[in-house]
Amino acid sequence: MVSSRTAAQRKTRADGERTRALILDTAVRLATIEGLDGLSIGKLAGATGVSKSGLYAHFGSKEQLQLATVETARHLFIEQVVAPALQATGLERLQALCESFLRYVERRTLPGGCFFAAAAAELGGRPGPVRELIAGNQEDWTQLLTAAAEDAISAGQLRQETDVAVLVFELNALVVAANTAFILHDNPAVIDRARAAVARVLDADAPEADR
Amino acid sequence: MVSSRTAAQRKTRADGERTRALILDTAVRLATIEGLDGLSIGKLAGATGVSKSGLYAHFGSKEQLQLATVETARHLFIEQVVAPALQATGLERLQALCESFLRYVERRTLPGGCFFAAAAAELGGRPGPVRELIAGNQEDWTQLLTAAAEDAISAGQLRQETDVAVLVFELNALVVAANTAFILHDNPAVIDRARAAVARVLDADAPEADR
Repeated sequence: MVSSRTAAQRKTRADGERTRALILDTAVRLATIEGLDGLSIGKLAGATGVSKSGLYAHFGSKEQLQLATVETARHLFIEQVVAPALQATGLERLQALCESFLRYVERRTLPGGCFFAAAAAELGGRPGPVRELIAGNQEDWTQLLTAAAEDAISAGQLRQETDVAVLVFELNALVVAANTAFILHDNPAVIDRARAAVARVLDADAPEADR
Repeated sequence: MVSSRTAAQRKTRADGERTRALILDTAVRLATIEGLDGLSIGKLAGATGVSKSGLYAHFGSKEQLQLATVETARHLFIEQVVAPALQATGLERLQALCESFLRYVERRTLPGGCFFAAAAAELGGRPGPVRELIAGNQEDWTQLLTAAAEDAISAGQLRQETDVAVLVFELNALVVAANTAFILHDNPAVIDRARAAVARVLDADAPEADR
Protein backbone atom coordinates (compact mmCIF):
# COMPACT_ATOMS: atom_id res chain seq x y z
CA MET A 1 0.00 0.00 0.00
CA VAL A 2 2.79 2.40 0.91
CA SER A 3 4.80 1.55 -2.19
CA SER A 4 1.71 1.92 -4.37
CA ARG A 5 1.02 5.36 -2.90
CA THR A 6 4.63 6.35 -3.56
CA ALA A 7 4.33 5.25 -7.18
CA ALA A 8 1.13 7.30 -7.50
CA GLN A 9 2.89 10.29 -5.98
CA ARG A 10 5.79 9.78 -8.37
CA LYS A 11 3.36 9.65 -11.28
CA THR A 12 1.69 12.85 -10.09
CA ARG A 13 5.02 14.59 -9.84
CA ALA A 14 6.08 13.42 -13.32
CA ASP A 15 2.73 14.63 -14.70
CA GLY A 16 3.29 17.94 -12.98
CA GLU A 17 6.70 18.32 -14.57
CA ARG A 18 5.36 17.43 -17.99
CA THR A 19 2.55 19.96 -17.61
CA ARG A 20 5.00 22.62 -16.48
CA ALA A 21 7.25 21.89 -19.48
CA LEU A 22 4.25 22.07 -21.84
CA ILE A 23 3.13 25.38 -20.37
CA LEU A 24 6.61 26.91 -20.64
CA ASP A 25 7.15 25.65 -24.17
CA THR A 26 3.85 27.26 -25.18
CA ALA A 27 4.76 30.42 -23.25
CA VAL A 28 8.06 30.82 -25.13
CA ARG A 29 6.32 30.45 -28.51
CA LEU A 30 3.45 32.74 -27.54
CA ALA A 31 5.80 35.41 -26.14
CA THR A 32 7.56 35.79 -29.52
CA ILE A 33 4.20 36.84 -31.01
CA GLU A 34 2.29 38.49 -28.16
CA GLY A 35 5.26 39.75 -26.15
CA LEU A 36 6.33 38.65 -22.66
CA ASP A 37 3.87 41.17 -21.32
CA GLY A 38 1.10 39.68 -23.42
CA LEU A 39 1.59 36.36 -21.59
CA SER A 40 -1.58 36.50 -19.55
CA ILE A 41 -2.57 33.50 -17.43
CA GLY A 42 -5.88 33.59 -19.35
CA LYS A 43 -4.32 33.35 -22.82
CA LEU A 44 -1.94 30.64 -21.68
CA ALA A 45 -4.83 28.66 -20.19
CA GLY A 46 -6.59 28.87 -23.56
CA ALA A 47 -3.47 27.80 -25.48
CA THR A 48 -2.51 24.86 -23.22
CA GLY A 49 -5.86 23.61 -21.94
CA VAL A 50 -4.56 23.93 -18.36
CA SER A 51 -7.02 25.68 -16.03
CA LYS A 52 -6.23 29.15 -14.71
CA SER A 53 -6.02 27.79 -11.17
CA GLY A 54 -3.66 25.05 -12.41
CA LEU A 55 -1.46 27.75 -13.95
CA TYR A 56 -1.44 29.73 -10.72
CA ALA A 57 -0.38 26.53 -8.91
CA HIS A 58 2.67 26.32 -11.20
CA PHE A 59 3.54 30.02 -11.28
CA GLY A 60 2.43 32.16 -8.38
CA SER A 61 2.56 35.44 -10.33
CA LYS A 62 2.89 36.80 -13.83
CA GLU A 63 6.48 37.80 -13.07
CA GLN A 64 7.36 34.25 -11.98
CA LEU A 65 5.82 32.96 -15.19
CA GLN A 66 7.84 35.47 -17.23
CA LEU A 67 11.10 34.57 -15.45
CA ALA A 68 10.50 30.84 -15.98
CA THR A 69 9.69 31.54 -19.65
CA VAL A 70 12.99 33.40 -20.11
CA GLU A 71 14.85 30.44 -18.51
CA THR A 72 13.13 28.03 -20.91
CA ALA A 73 14.02 30.24 -23.88
CA ARG A 74 17.63 30.29 -22.63
CA HIS A 75 17.80 26.48 -22.67
CA LEU A 76 16.33 26.39 -26.18
CA PHE A 77 18.83 28.99 -27.40
CA ILE A 78 21.77 27.08 -25.89
CA GLU A 79 20.56 23.82 -27.40
CA GLN A 80 19.81 25.20 -30.87
CA VAL A 81 22.30 28.01 -31.38
CA VAL A 82 25.20 27.74 -28.95
CA ALA A 83 25.82 23.99 -28.55
CA PRO A 84 26.23 23.16 -32.28
CA ALA A 85 28.91 25.87 -32.57
CA LEU A 86 31.00 24.76 -29.59
CA GLN A 87 32.67 21.95 -31.51
CA ALA A 88 34.64 24.58 -33.42
CA THR A 89 37.19 27.00 -31.92
CA GLY A 90 38.50 30.50 -32.66
CA LEU A 91 37.44 32.05 -35.97
CA GLU A 92 35.45 28.95 -36.94
CA ARG A 93 33.47 29.14 -33.69
CA LEU A 94 32.73 32.81 -34.34
CA GLN A 95 31.48 31.97 -37.84
CA ALA A 96 29.56 28.94 -36.53
CA LEU A 97 27.78 30.98 -33.83
CA CYS A 98 26.57 33.51 -36.43
CA GLU A 99 25.57 30.80 -38.90
CA SER A 100 23.85 28.80 -36.19
CA PHE A 101 21.80 31.86 -35.17
CA LEU A 102 20.82 32.58 -38.78
CA ARG A 103 19.69 28.97 -39.30
CA TYR A 104 17.69 29.09 -36.07
CA VAL A 105 15.81 32.09 -37.50
CA GLU A 106 15.60 30.67 -41.03
CA ARG A 107 13.99 27.40 -39.97
CA ARG A 108 11.38 29.33 -37.97
CA THR A 109 12.18 27.65 -34.66
CA LEU A 110 9.82 30.11 -32.93
CA PRO A 111 6.89 31.76 -34.72
CA GLY A 112 7.97 35.34 -33.94
CA GLY A 113 11.72 34.76 -34.42
CA CYS A 114 14.44 35.01 -31.77
CA PHE A 115 12.89 35.15 -28.30
CA PHE A 116 15.66 37.35 -26.85
CA ALA A 117 15.65 39.87 -29.69
CA ALA A 118 11.90 40.33 -29.21
CA ALA A 119 12.18 40.44 -25.41
CA ALA A 120 15.06 42.96 -25.43
CA ALA A 121 13.10 45.29 -27.70
CA GLU A 122 9.94 44.85 -25.63
CA LEU A 123 11.31 45.18 -22.12
CA GLY A 124 14.49 47.19 -22.74
CA GLY A 125 12.93 50.35 -21.34
CA ARG A 126 11.22 48.69 -18.33
CA PRO A 127 13.57 48.12 -15.36
CA GLY A 128 12.94 45.04 -13.20
CA PRO A 129 14.01 41.43 -12.70
CA VAL A 130 12.74 40.25 -16.11
CA ARG A 131 14.75 42.92 -17.93
CA GLU A 132 17.80 42.04 -15.82
CA LEU A 133 17.53 38.38 -16.75
CA ILE A 134 17.23 39.25 -20.45
CA ALA A 135 20.15 41.69 -20.26
CA GLY A 136 22.23 38.97 -18.53
CA ASN A 137 21.48 36.53 -21.33
CA GLN A 138 22.50 39.12 -23.93
CA GLU A 139 25.75 39.64 -22.05
CA ASP A 140 26.44 35.90 -22.01
CA TRP A 141 25.93 35.80 -25.79
CA THR A 142 28.21 38.81 -26.29
CA GLN A 143 30.78 37.21 -23.99
CA LEU A 144 30.69 34.01 -26.03
CA LEU A 145 31.36 35.93 -29.26
CA THR A 146 34.07 37.98 -27.52
CA ALA A 147 35.93 34.92 -26.22
CA ALA A 148 35.83 33.28 -29.67
CA ALA A 149 37.12 36.51 -31.29
CA GLU A 150 39.95 36.74 -28.75
CA ASP A 151 40.91 33.12 -29.42
CA ALA A 152 40.89 33.87 -33.15
CA ILE A 153 43.29 36.78 -32.57
CA SER A 154 45.60 34.62 -30.41
CA ALA A 155 45.56 31.98 -33.15
CA GLY A 156 46.50 34.59 -35.77
CA GLN A 157 43.17 34.15 -37.58
CA LEU A 158 42.20 37.78 -37.00
CA ARG A 159 44.69 40.65 -36.94
CA GLN A 160 46.14 41.75 -33.60
CA GLU A 161 44.69 45.28 -33.88
CA THR A 162 41.11 43.99 -34.13
CA ASP A 163 38.76 46.09 -31.98
CA VAL A 164 36.93 43.12 -30.45
CA ALA A 165 34.11 45.19 -28.93
CA VAL A 166 33.32 46.77 -32.31
CA LEU A 167 33.61 43.45 -34.16
CA VAL A 168 31.27 41.67 -31.72
CA PHE A 169 28.85 44.59 -31.82
CA GLU A 170 28.79 44.33 -35.63
CA LEU A 171 28.28 40.56 -35.76
CA ASN A 172 25.47 40.66 -33.22
CA ALA A 173 23.85 43.63 -35.01
CA LEU A 174 23.84 41.74 -38.31
CA VAL A 175 22.25 38.52 -37.08
CA VAL A 176 19.63 40.35 -34.99
CA ALA A 177 18.75 42.61 -37.96
CA ALA A 178 18.34 39.51 -40.14
CA ASN A 179 15.90 38.14 -37.56
CA THR A 180 13.86 41.37 -37.45
CA ALA A 181 13.69 41.77 -41.24
CA PHE A 182 12.94 38.07 -41.81
CA ILE A 183 9.95 38.24 -39.46
CA LEU A 184 8.71 41.69 -40.50
CA HIS A 185 8.99 41.34 -44.26
CA ASP A 186 8.82 37.54 -44.44
CA ASN A 187 11.78 37.73 -46.80
CA PRO A 188 14.32 34.86 -46.77
CA ALA A 189 16.77 36.95 -48.87
CA VAL A 190 17.77 38.94 -45.78
CA ILE A 191 19.33 35.83 -44.26
CA ASP A 192 21.75 35.57 -47.20
CA ARG A 193 22.37 39.30 -47.02
CA ALA A 194 23.35 38.82 -43.37
CA ARG A 195 25.61 35.89 -44.30
CA ALA A 196 27.41 38.08 -46.85
CA ALA A 197 27.72 40.89 -44.31
CA VAL A 198 29.13 38.58 -41.60
CA ALA A 199 31.75 37.31 -44.04
CA ARG A 200 32.63 40.88 -45.06
CA VAL A 201 32.99 42.04 -41.46
CA LEU A 202 35.25 39.12 -40.53
CA ASP A 203 37.24 39.65 -43.72
CA ALA A 204 37.89 43.27 -42.75
CA ASP A 205 39.74 41.98 -39.68
CA ALA A 206 41.61 39.20 -41.48
CA PRO A 207 45.40 39.28 -41.05
CA GLU A 208 47.08 41.32 -43.82
CA ALA A 209 48.42 38.21 -45.56
CA ASP A 210 44.91 36.83 -46.09
CA ARG A 211 43.22 39.96 -47.48
CA MET B 1 -24.49 86.06 -32.78
CA VAL B 2 -23.73 83.96 -35.85
CA SER B 3 -20.14 85.21 -36.06
CA SER B 4 -19.65 84.67 -32.33
CA ARG B 5 -20.91 81.08 -32.63
CA THR B 6 -18.52 80.51 -35.54
CA ALA B 7 -15.60 81.76 -33.45
CA ALA B 8 -16.64 79.44 -30.65
CA GLN B 9 -16.84 76.58 -33.11
CA ARG B 10 -13.40 77.47 -34.41
CA LYS B 11 -12.06 77.52 -30.86
CA THR B 12 -13.60 74.12 -30.19
CA ARG B 13 -12.05 72.69 -33.30
CA ALA B 14 -8.61 74.13 -32.44
CA ASP B 15 -8.96 72.70 -28.93
CA GLY B 16 -9.87 69.34 -30.44
CA GLU B 17 -6.76 69.38 -32.65
CA ARG B 18 -4.54 70.34 -29.72
CA THR B 19 -6.03 67.54 -27.62
CA ARG B 20 -5.56 65.06 -30.45
CA ALA B 21 -1.91 66.13 -30.86
CA LEU B 22 -1.35 65.81 -27.10
CA ILE B 23 -2.90 62.34 -27.05
CA LEU B 24 -0.79 61.15 -30.00
CA ASP B 25 2.42 62.63 -28.63
CA THR B 26 1.79 60.77 -25.37
CA ALA B 27 0.85 57.62 -27.28
CA VAL B 28 4.16 57.61 -29.21
CA ARG B 29 6.17 57.99 -26.01
CA LEU B 30 4.12 55.41 -24.12
CA ALA B 31 4.30 52.89 -26.99
CA THR B 32 8.12 52.84 -26.83
CA ILE B 33 7.82 51.58 -23.25
CA GLU B 34 4.56 49.64 -23.12
CA GLY B 35 4.42 48.56 -26.75
CA LEU B 36 1.83 49.55 -29.35
CA ASP B 37 -0.34 46.77 -28.04
CA GLY B 38 0.00 48.12 -24.51
CA LEU B 39 -1.64 51.35 -25.68
CA SER B 40 -4.96 50.84 -23.98
CA ILE B 41 -7.54 53.62 -24.02
CA GLY B 42 -7.53 53.34 -20.22
CA LYS B 43 -3.77 53.90 -19.79
CA LEU B 44 -3.82 56.74 -22.28
CA ALA B 45 -6.72 58.37 -20.42
CA GLY B 46 -4.65 58.18 -17.22
CA ALA B 47 -1.55 59.62 -18.91
CA THR B 48 -3.29 62.51 -20.72
CA GLY B 49 -6.15 63.38 -18.39
CA VAL B 50 -8.58 63.01 -21.32
CA SER B 51 -11.65 60.92 -20.46
CA LYS B 52 -12.11 57.49 -21.98
CA SER B 53 -15.19 58.70 -23.84
CA GLY B 54 -13.17 61.68 -25.11
CA LEU B 55 -10.51 59.26 -26.40
CA TYR B 56 -13.14 57.15 -28.14
CA ALA B 57 -14.45 60.32 -29.78
CA HIS B 58 -10.97 60.94 -31.28
CA PHE B 59 -10.17 57.31 -32.17
CA GLY B 60 -13.03 54.94 -32.80
CA SER B 61 -10.98 51.81 -32.12
CA LYS B 62 -7.66 50.66 -30.73
CA GLU B 63 -6.46 49.94 -34.26
CA GLN B 64 -7.28 53.49 -35.37
CA LEU B 65 -5.38 54.80 -32.36
CA GLN B 66 -2.38 52.58 -33.22
CA LEU B 67 -2.38 53.68 -36.88
CA ALA B 68 -2.56 57.36 -35.91
CA THR B 69 0.28 56.77 -33.41
CA VAL B 70 2.48 55.24 -36.12
CA GLU B 71 1.77 58.25 -38.38
CA THR B 72 2.77 60.63 -35.57
CA ALA B 73 5.98 58.66 -34.97
CA ARG B 74 6.70 58.86 -38.70
CA HIS B 75 6.48 62.66 -38.63
CA LEU B 76 8.77 62.80 -35.60
CA PHE B 77 11.30 60.50 -37.29
CA ILE B 78 11.29 62.58 -40.49
CA GLU B 79 11.70 65.80 -38.52
CA GLN B 80 14.45 64.53 -36.19
CA VAL B 81 16.37 61.97 -38.24
CA VAL B 82 15.68 62.38 -41.95
CA ALA B 83 15.33 66.14 -42.49
CA PRO B 84 18.68 67.17 -40.94
CA ALA B 85 20.51 64.72 -43.24
CA LEU B 86 18.87 65.87 -46.49
CA GLN B 87 21.11 68.90 -46.82
CA ALA B 88 23.98 66.55 -47.69
CA THR B 89 24.16 64.29 -50.78
CA GLY B 90 25.75 60.96 -51.72
CA LEU B 91 28.21 59.50 -49.21
CA GLU B 92 27.79 62.45 -46.86
CA ARG B 93 24.04 61.92 -46.79
CA LEU B 94 24.53 58.25 -46.01
CA GLN B 95 26.85 59.15 -43.13
CA ALA B 96 24.50 61.93 -41.98
CA LEU B 97 21.47 59.60 -41.90
CA CYS B 98 23.33 57.12 -39.66
CA GLU B 99 24.74 59.85 -37.43
CA SER B 100 21.37 61.56 -37.19
CA PHE B 101 19.72 58.29 -36.10
CA LEU B 102 22.43 57.67 -33.48
CA ARG B 103 22.00 61.18 -32.06
CA TYR B 104 18.23 60.73 -31.96
CA VAL B 105 18.78 57.65 -29.78
CA GLU B 106 21.60 59.22 -27.74
CA ARG B 107 19.60 62.28 -26.72
CA ARG B 108 16.75 60.02 -25.58
CA THR B 109 14.15 61.61 -27.84
CA LEU B 110 11.70 58.87 -26.79
CA PRO B 111 11.93 57.05 -23.44
CA GLY B 112 12.10 53.55 -24.96
CA GLY B 113 14.33 54.50 -27.92
CA CYS B 114 13.40 54.33 -31.60
CA PHE B 115 9.65 53.89 -32.02
CA PHE B 116 9.97 51.89 -35.24
CA ALA B 117 12.64 49.51 -33.94
CA ALA B 118 10.40 48.69 -30.97
CA ALA B 119 7.26 48.42 -33.13
CA ALA B 120 8.93 46.18 -35.73
CA ALA B 121 10.11 43.79 -33.02
CA GLU B 122 6.73 43.85 -31.30
CA LEU B 123 4.39 43.49 -34.27
CA GLY B 124 6.67 41.79 -36.81
CA GLY B 125 4.94 38.45 -36.31
CA ARG B 126 1.39 39.80 -36.28
CA PRO B 127 -0.07 40.43 -39.75
CA GLY B 128 -2.50 43.31 -40.14
CA PRO B 129 -2.73 46.98 -41.14
CA VAL B 130 -0.52 48.20 -38.27
CA ARG B 131 2.30 45.82 -39.23
CA GLU B 132 1.90 46.86 -42.89
CA LEU B 133 2.26 50.53 -41.99
CA ILE B 134 5.38 49.82 -39.93
CA ALA B 135 6.89 47.63 -42.66
CA GLY B 136 6.17 50.42 -45.18
CA ASN B 137 8.02 52.93 -43.00
CA GLN B 138 10.99 50.56 -42.70
CA GLU B 139 11.03 50.23 -46.50
CA ASP B 140 11.01 54.02 -46.91
CA TRP B 141 14.01 54.25 -44.57
CA THR B 142 15.86 51.49 -46.44
CA GLN B 143 15.01 53.19 -49.74
CA LEU B 144 16.44 56.47 -48.47
CA LEU B 145 19.72 54.76 -47.53
CA THR B 146 19.75 52.87 -50.85
CA ALA B 147 19.28 56.02 -52.94
CA ALA B 148 22.09 57.80 -51.05
CA ALA B 149 24.39 54.78 -51.52
CA GLU B 150 23.63 54.69 -55.26
CA ASP B 151 24.37 58.40 -55.54
CA ALA B 152 27.65 57.83 -53.70
CA ILE B 153 28.59 55.12 -56.22
CA SER B 154 27.69 57.37 -59.17
CA ALA B 155 29.81 60.13 -57.64
CA GLY B 156 32.76 57.73 -57.28
CA GLN B 157 32.64 57.99 -53.47
CA LEU B 158 31.96 54.25 -53.10
CA ARG B 159 33.39 51.62 -55.43
CA GLN B 160 31.33 50.48 -58.42
CA GLU B 161 31.15 46.85 -57.19
CA THR B 162 29.47 47.84 -53.91
CA ASP B 163 26.64 45.44 -53.07
CA VAL B 164 24.16 48.15 -52.10
CA ALA B 165 21.61 45.77 -50.54
CA VAL B 166 24.28 44.29 -48.23
CA LEU B 167 25.72 47.71 -47.39
CA VAL B 168 22.31 49.16 -46.50
CA PHE B 169 21.45 46.05 -44.51
CA GLU B 170 24.68 46.49 -42.52
CA LEU B 171 24.21 50.20 -41.83
CA ASN B 172 20.63 49.74 -40.68
CA ALA B 173 21.63 46.74 -38.54
CA LEU B 174 24.32 48.78 -36.78
CA VAL B 175 22.19 51.78 -35.87
CA VAL B 176 19.24 49.64 -34.75
CA ALA B 177 21.56 47.46 -32.61
CA ALA B 178 22.97 50.62 -31.01
CA ASN B 179 19.41 51.63 -30.13
CA THR B 180 18.58 48.24 -28.58
CA ALA B 181 21.80 48.02 -26.55
CA PHE B 182 21.60 51.66 -25.43
CA ILE B 183 18.11 51.12 -24.05
CA LEU B 184 18.68 47.63 -22.63
CA HIS B 185 22.04 48.20 -20.96
CA ASP B 186 21.76 51.98 -20.53
CA ASN B 187 25.29 52.15 -21.91
CA PRO B 188 26.28 55.22 -23.97
CA ALA B 189 29.50 53.46 -25.12
CA VAL B 190 27.51 51.42 -27.65
CA ILE B 191 26.70 54.58 -29.60
CA ASP B 192 30.41 55.20 -30.21
CA ARG B 193 30.90 51.53 -31.02
CA ALA B 194 28.18 51.90 -33.68
CA ARG B 195 29.86 55.07 -35.01
CA ALA B 196 33.14 53.17 -35.40
CA ALA B 197 31.34 50.27 -37.07
CA VAL B 198 29.50 52.55 -39.54
CA ALA B 199 32.81 54.17 -40.51
CA ARG B 200 34.41 50.74 -40.94
CA VAL B 201 31.60 49.43 -43.13
CA LEU B 202 31.67 52.50 -45.39
CA ASP B 203 35.46 52.29 -45.54
CA ALA B 204 35.26 48.69 -46.77
CA ASP B 205 33.41 50.00 -49.85
CA ALA B 206 35.65 53.01 -50.42
CA PRO B 207 37.18 53.23 -53.92
CA GLU B 208 40.60 51.49 -54.06
CA ALA B 209 42.48 54.79 -54.22
CA ASP B 210 41.08 55.90 -50.84
CA ARG B 211 41.71 52.72 -48.85
